[in-house]
Amino acid sequence: MQRKYLAKIHVTLRPSVLDPAGVAVQSGLKQMGYETVENVRIGKYIELTIISQDETKARRDLDNICDQMLANPVIENYRFDLIEVETQTGVF
Amino acid sequence: MQRKYLAKIHVTLRPSVLDPAGVAVQSGLKQMGYETVENVRIGKYIELTIISQDETKARRDLDNICDQMLANPVIENYRFDLIEVETQTGVF
Repeated sequence: MQRKYLAKIHVTLRPSVLDPAGVAVQSGLKQMGYETVENVRIGKYIELTIISQDETKARRDLDNICDQMLANPVIENYRFDLIEVETQTGVF
Repeated sequence: MQRKYLAKIHVTLRPSVLDPAGVAVQSGLKQMGYETVENVRIGKYIELTIISQDETKARRDLDNICDQMLANPVIENYRFDLIEVETQTGVF
């Protein structure tokens, strides 16, 4: 039996890393009159589905996927939520 | 009195819009052996703080900020959560 999970993944810059894009957005917003906007940090939000035998295996695979493909562990953190969306029988 | 809010903003491609970056990530993951990963969609996740007189005003400003700066309303949706982090008196 295989289970299908929806993963909601957040990849954010580590707090110690400068965010030039965030600084640019903040500066633009100030020019538009939003003077009280601060601490702008821009990250990635990724959704995907993964089919696994269980949640433990899905989480292990997602850790690897984030470390190797979605995030740069030197400068970024990641976290994800898993939601089971389907349980399926049969061969994939 | 002014209140400080932390906004957590998700900007995602509308479901009808093709996501070439998501397709590329999915293809890369397949080559790495993650055959069951599908429906990869890549969006943005933005955090910022904003000081406002109340939550209604903060939400109105954030709607404008998302429409004008953070999202392209033609191809992207956005949503945000607001968390009050501080209440301050005095002049800003």
